[in-house]
Amino acid sequence: MARKIIVLGSTGSIGTQTLKVADQHPEKINIIGLSARNNIDLLEKQIRKYRPLAAAVLIPEKALELKKRLGDTSTTILAGKSGLKALAAWPDSDLVVVGLVGFSGLEPTFAAVSKGKTVALANKEALVVGGELIMAEAKAKKAVIIPVDSEHSALFQCLHAGGKKEVAKVILTASGGPFLGWNKNELSAVKPARALKHPNWKMGAKVTIDSATLMNKGFEVIEARWLFDIDFKQIDVVIHPESIIHSMVEFIDGSTIAQISLPSMLFPIQYALSYPERWENNFPRLDWDFKRNLTFMPPDRISFPCLDYAYQAGAMGGTMPAVLNAANEVAVEEFLKNNIPFLHIPVVLEEIMNKHSTRLNPSLEEIVETDTWARQESRYFLRS
Amino acid sequence: MARKIIVLGSTGSIGTQTLKVADQHPEKINIIGLSARNNIDLLEKQIRKYRPLAAAVLIPEKALELKKRLGDTSTTILAGKSGLKALAAWPDSDLVVVGLVGFSGLEPTFAAVSKGKTVALANKEALVVGGELIMAEAKAKKAVIIPVDSEHSALFQCLHAGGKKEVAKVILTASGGPFLGWNKNELSAVKPARALKHPNWKMGAKVTIDSATLMNKGFEVIEARWLFDIDFKQIDVVIHPESIIHSMVEFIDGSTIAQISLPSMLFPIQYALSYPERWENNFPRLDWDFKRNLTFMPPDRISFPCLDYAYQAGAMGGTMPAVLNAANEVAVEEFLKNNIPFLHIPVVLEEIMNKHSTRLNPSLEEIVETDTWARQESRYFLRS
Repeated sequence: MARKIIVLGSTGSIGTQTLKVADQHPEKINIIGLSARNNIDLLEKQIRKYRPLAAAVLIPEKALELKKRLGDTSTTILAGKSGLKALAAWPDSDLVVVGLVGFSGLEPTFAAVSKGKTVALANKEALVVGGELIMAEAKAKKAVIIPVDSEHSALFQCLHAGGKKEVAKVILTASGGPFLGWNKNELSAVKPARALKHPNWKMGAKVTIDSATLMNKGFEVIEARWLFDIDFKQIDVVIHPESIIHSMVEFIDGSTIAQISLPSMLFPIQYALSYPERWENNFPRLDWDFKRNLTFMPPDRISFPCLDYAYQAGAMGGTMPAVLNAANEVAVEEFLKNNIPFLHIPVVLEEIMNKHSTRLNPSLEEIVETDTWARQESRYFLRS
Repeated sequence: MARKIIVLGSTGSIGTQTLKVADQHPEKINIIGLSARNNIDLLEKQIRKYRPLAAAVLIPEKALELKKRLGDTSTTILAGKSGLKALAAWPDSDLVVVGLVGFSGLEPTFAAVSKGKTVALANKEALVVGGELIMAEAKAKKAVIIPVDSEHSALFQCLHAGGKKEVAKVILTASGGPFLGWNKNELSAVKPARALKHPNWKMGAKVTIDSATLMNKGFEVIEARWLFDIDFKQIDVVIHPESIIHSMVEFIDGSTIAQISLPSMLFPIQYALSYPERWENNFPRLDWDFKRNLTFMPPDRISFPCLDYAYQAGAMGGTMPAVLNAANEVAVEEFLKNNIPFLHIPVVLEEIMNKHSTRLNPSLEEIVETDTWARQESRYFLRS
């Protein structure tokens, strides 16, 4: 029986690659739901190809337009945030892929988890801002969360080699991004176009900038804390510019298990879809037929302070990571518009975090409120 | 309850390190048996420290002498080959560590497996010459074989990350030994003292020379074929001079899992003793706090032809690997005595293999006979 899969954010980077994986396994995967923010041209094509039961469009007027265009099909078109949440919680699915960008992933992820769904989670922000809440809900509703992020997929795979109590630490690898080895002086003049050129990974704009600041790795630290229920002290970050080893688990006996592949999201996406199985595919393979160097070094925590802000926000817990995330989303947006310099991104984070007193064990509403507050504060700070 | 462990070859490199592991876990490991070839001075010390139920000495007159020395203890002293086999098959043990060198490992390993023991196998020659026989016997008697060789221990750990049918290939890493990058001309003048200087691993003389010729890696290819029931076509060898990644498993989905540690046999030995658990220890850890380069390259099959002889002997099957092994033991012995040049080792192998018509599905007796024949032929060839 084919797995019935819903793809939230199907027109984005993760979404389109998920459909590429689905195309490799038509007998194993049945796409029953799709969603987009506003790219209804691509979404229409996807709907005509996969004939899902339902599709959601976040921008209501775009949903309306799509509905008109698709009058000849039987796909139910859902609109707005509530439509997206309804699709996430769709009764008949086996797996919900969350390929949404940023904070917008939180509520649909929570909706899917609340229905006890198996969730393939590519949206790290959901766990960054709501990790405690989501993991508690997942436990209560017996929902399973399978990581899609290449690092967490690597850890998820490596953890099979030992027991939970036998984990000494997890080691997240980081490419270091386009500015590896640059000092603050060199970073001060960085423009968006340069920051968007990632050496190894082709990703959306937001996560590419987060890679350049190491904020992305910081978010992954918080994500790992919740996904694998481990202490921040047990999470290390190592720079590995070639992005061949995607992360490692060191066990208490001194044995470390690492996961390796070419740097392509197709591999972790497929693993999330096939888990607990592994499926053959024709994606390009890493080969060892020529001389290959893999390098490793500690991160530069001075030039890239966002990493430590994540450790700090994570350790403070409660609503603080939501503040970090919101301030970062605003700062990255402004940087991409060329409104603020690259090095101003961490300045915004530090400023807004300092203004916030964390509330522990926040509800979903409190997280949303905190997010709204932190965005306002960030914009206010940037205008002042 | 502590595991009752017998260590065959307790005075050798693997044996002494096994006892070092045991010293870390006195509450978990109870040494109930020890054995040596002829080093009764060290064996006496070990017996006085661990107070095993029994100990075996291969050389009968040495056994007699040890018995006299240990009149004040209650340890039973067994003598000769039959004594060693009796210890391997000792009724009360939970695990038999086979740390014997070369062909001598075959019969005791078979004896342990025949009694349905769990065997921690460091002696690769047993599987090289008798893999088919031993694995069939293990299956029939429900014996479990846990690899101790660092490469096979690595594979054994990595295989947890997927199903048996999901394995695309296994990749054995090889340091390349002391002569990595040398051509045949440079190799022609190599002396034993130089060949015994392995860059990463401290091991016995025989296996150190086998590392220098890549014969050791060839044996490991055959060992892997039997341990993991895979085809020779699915076994690759990659040179990795730093010996940090100890081997890898590539799964059908393009994901590769690797095992990493400092190059010390303490890690795989402990894993074999603790399996399926992992135990904490104070062995030095690999750290990632400074810049580290890991390099990989294909093996030089021209300068180091022993590797391909192993693939050939393995593919021919039957008694051929026993011929390869016997010829190699004789050739290495003669090289260590400075009687033949380094590059003559593969010449002996090729010559004796060419003289042999393999017998398929050999019995233990036929393997022993073949071994005797190949040794005689090798000595005859070297004298002619």
